Amino acid sequence: MSEGRGRRRGGRDARRKERQNAAMVQRTYITRRIPCTEVLSEEGLEIIEANAETILEEIGIEFHDDEECLALWKDAGADVRGTRVHVPRGLARSILKTAPGEFTQYARNPERSVRIGGDHTVFAPVYGPPFVHDLDRGRRYGTIEDFRNFVKLAYMAPAIHHSGGTVCEPVDIPVNKRHLDMVYSHIRYSDKPFMGSVTHPDRAADTVAMAKLVFGDDFVENNCCVVSLINANSPMVFDATMLGALKTYARHNQATVVSPFILAGAMSPVTVAGTLAQLLAEALAGMCVTQLVRPGAPVIFGTFASSISMQSGAPTFGTPEPTLVLFAAAQLARRLGIPFRSGGSLCGSKLPDAQAAYESAQTLLPTLLGGINFVLHAAGWLEAGLSSSYEKFVMDADQLGMMQVMAEGIDLSENGQAMDAIREVGPGAHYLGCDHTQRNFQTAFYRSNIADNNSVEQWQSEGSLDAAQRANAVWKAWLADYQAPALDPGIDEALQAFIREKKDSMPDAMV
Amino acid sequence: MSEGRGRRRGGRDARRKERQNAAMVQRTYITRRIPCTEVLSEEGLEIIEANAETILEEIGIEFHDDEECLALWKDAGADVRGTRVHVPRGLARSILKTAPGEFTQYARNPERSVRIGGDHTVFAPVYGPPFVHDLDRGRRYGTIEDFRNFVKLAYMAPAIHHSGGTVCEPVDIPVNKRHLDMVYSHIRYSDKPFMGSVTHPDRAADTVAMAKLVFGDDFVENNCCVVSLINANSPMVFDATMLGALKTYARHNQATVVSPFILAGAMSPVTVAGTLAQLLAEALAGMCVTQLVRPGAPVIFGTFASSISMQSGAPTFGTPEPTLVLFAAAQLARRLGIPFRSGGSLCGSKLPDAQAAYESAQTLLPTLLGGINFVLHAAGWLEAGLSSSYEKFVMDADQLGMMQVMAEGIDLSENGQAMDAIREVGPGAHYLGCDHTQRNFQTAFYRSNIADNNSVEQWQSEGSLDAAQRANAVWKAWLADYQAPALDPGIDEALQAFIREKKDSMPDAMV
Repeated sequence: MSEGRGRRRGGRDARRKERQNAAMVQRTYITRRIPCTEVLSEEGLEIIEANAETILEEIGIEFHDDEECLALWKDAGADVRGTRVHVPRGLARSILKTAPGEFTQYARNPERSVRIGGDHTVFAPVYGPPFVHDLDRGRRYGTIEDFRNFVKLAYMAPAIHHSGGTVCEPVDIPVNKRHLDMVYSHIRYSDKPFMGSVTHPDRAADTVAMAKLVFGDDFVENNCCVVSLINANSPMVFDATMLGALKTYARHNQATVVSPFILAGAMSPVTVAGTLAQLLAEALAGMCVTQLVRPGAPVIFGTFASSISMQSGAPTFGTPEPTLVLFAAAQLARRLGIPFRSGGSLCGSKLPDAQAAYESAQTLLPTLLGGINFVLHAAGWLEAGLSSSYEKFVMDADQLGMMQVMAEGIDLSENGQAMDAIREVGPGAHYLGCDHTQRNFQTAFYRSNIADNNSVEQWQSEGSLDAAQRANAVWKAWLADYQAPALDPGIDEALQAFIREKKDSMPDAMV
Repeated sequence: MSEGRGRRRGGRDARRKERQNAAMVQRTYITRRIPCTEVLSEEGLEIIEANAETILEEIGIEFHDDEECLALWKDAGADVRGTRVHVPRGLARSILKTAPGEFTQYARNPERSVRIGGDHTVFAPVYGPPFVHDLDRGRRYGTIEDFRNFVKLAYMAPAIHHSGGTVCEPVDIPVNKRHLDMVYSHIRYSDKPFMGSVTHPDRAADTVAMAKLVFGDDFVENNCCVVSLINANSPMVFDATMLGALKTYARHNQATVVSPFILAGAMSPVTVAGTLAQLLAEALAGMCVTQLVRPGAPVIFGTFASSISMQSGAPTFGTPEPTLVLFAAAQLARRLGIPFRSGGSLCGSKLPDAQAAYESAQTLLPTLLGGINFVLHAAGWLEAGLSSSYEKFVMDADQLGMMQVMAEGIDLSENGQAMDAIREVGPGAHYLGCDHTQRNFQTAFYRSNIADNNSVEQWQSEGSLDAAQRANAVWKAWLADYQAPALDPGIDEALQAFIREKKDSMPDAMV
């Protein structure tokens, strides 16, 4: 292999720079060419589906503090007793027949629009952490500067297809005004599709209004320009805040991800099959509301499923039980014909160390193999989702690039079969210099910008850095190289005027 | 979740100890209850198989310095020109019809015997590194003490089913006598099945002789008691050393793993489909020799496939292309009806850091999902296989435990469905105290002995350790707790006498 070594010469900095910026060409959302990994038989799926219908009918789902929602259910034929909605067998599936099997979420740059559902996978960054973490400053509360930084990193990352939503909480901005700066940051510092606010129906309405300033009123009413995350309060409760945001988005034809957020053992049974039945019932019930408000509104079947430690009660990640939930829930969503959200790069570690990486990979690879359509938390998640990590963000982004290549499957073209190479080289020789290798040199193998595969001697000469330390240099280089995508000055001014007006209209509040 | 916390009280050391020794109950080899992940269509598989036959027929395979082998091929109907064997289309598959589809490798403790092939997966430790690595002493040459330590750790690890072979090279023992101490260590310090020497036909014969001292002459001749690793010199060459060992084992009905060792781009084409055709041709040719020597001898279709960095020539791990090779090669082996070896916990990192973990998980999970039957390097592999790592050994062992649980699939029993729990708890409550949770408390979720899922505050109070630092304490605790399995004193004396006699019969040599 010595022929391959030293092919490119230059200083250490040049080599590092080259490595950090390798393959920064933006990738389109994934269209898979490999089958989905499935773990549950037809019989097993039918058992889960039957149990979910039993939960909907016999136990019912609570819809708190939302009379409109209860009225919609009643009109649809459900048995509503107080705030408890009992859904007759089959009714939920019948209501969901109007939900699209896949749809496009538009980005302000049409090349970055994504297709959600079907054979497609869209990677979006971490969502929700109040803290941020990096090797230099450790763990601290997130700020709007951190928020912008993560938007910029997601914009730079070739295999992150989506700008996401709450990439971290900007706690330096009042809660009741925060969403304006967050949505603006996604629009201003990226041209990838983004997510909206769900913390109040008014903030959802603000998100829609801002989208209209970018895309135009009619376009937004007829196309999906925002996807937003609606969590169930598992077990079997939806609250007024989430329902309010859900209804606002559905009314404007914008997509919601209806996600039971489940730590199995606490919010669902300690078994995989029990958790599956409950989350299916919850998702069915929540998704139905979108169709009752506006038939045909895009909706995503979501689930966030992890387990708890039965010893400490702490959430755990990367363990086998949630992976089985993920695989099987994706099967259930495919049978339902609705796009599915789950997975990501989850971990419980407090550092971007081996635990973080094992757990993330054990979540991310099933996410890809299981055929998940929309992937929140695909990069940057640390500490059970309490921190957005700069180093982990770029380490995960590297893994996402690998997932994108894997999804393409095996090239069976004549060039892929490479029989000319095998004939040319023959027994006992090597392939480094053969024509076929030269022709395919640039694209042959995925090239990591994080991994160090050099000899131990060379690695030592470069400072014996671990992966997190190399990642520290990568995110700094990305931010240094960042250039904002162009934004029409008229749109920018309109957005800023809208934000000013909204902020001036109310006092700061921390709820 | 507060009810779960503080359930067990005691000092920090007690909690650590408990965590380190959690679930030390030995697990039987895996019998999978989930389908195999497959990436290649029927049509794709047929293309690869046809190309492999073309390689065998048109290009041929070199068998160096082994007249007996060439004569066997000629008698079988191959076109032998010098050392090049051209195998007519279909002949190899015809010869391999006598190879068993699955077989038992016996351990001296019958409870540790393993089933190789079919729906089964057997995990064996890292094989071959000249160096060892731990956090205290860093990287250094391996010794017989290290070798024994890794045998002991593999014996202790619940989800490592096999003692393996060269868990590290004991470079403090002369090369020509090393195999005696290695085989003895596996027999003396473990009761799990083990691998034999392949560095010289005489050393293979010594391995068989030592197995006979343990199992009896007749038993060894009629049953598989040793599995040994035979590498091809890819592309398309087998050398006399490997062929000599292979023939010795086959003659005594002992199993061999015939493994093309391929770094794609150097020893095979830079494409997945090209690499697959070549490795299939090589494996077919090598495996045939076992059946020509002794029809019915157990043999395993092996492959070690990675890629090289096209920039530096260094081997890379955990990238998507070798994963696709792994999945597809497993499909090819299943169609052939012969047990398959591949995968493991491979990585290129020099440290047990995030790179090591990402890459290992990206190899190990496909290993499990792809239905690999025999898994070398399942624990301890570091630095592209140049080092056996103490910390990574126990970190990987933890991951193997998770793979074992995942392979069991989803429990659809009444207890698994947990409808009683869902009915009992209902909307808005939690499952921590319900009857179903109490009944399933002990076995509910996989429990890692490496991961830390506590709050950041508790983690800080315990020293802010990363996963590798926690693993450092785990392997030391395991070695401290190690107790050798009983060995019949008569057998032990016979083995030691055999070794003394062999060692006295020749001068030390370093080849």
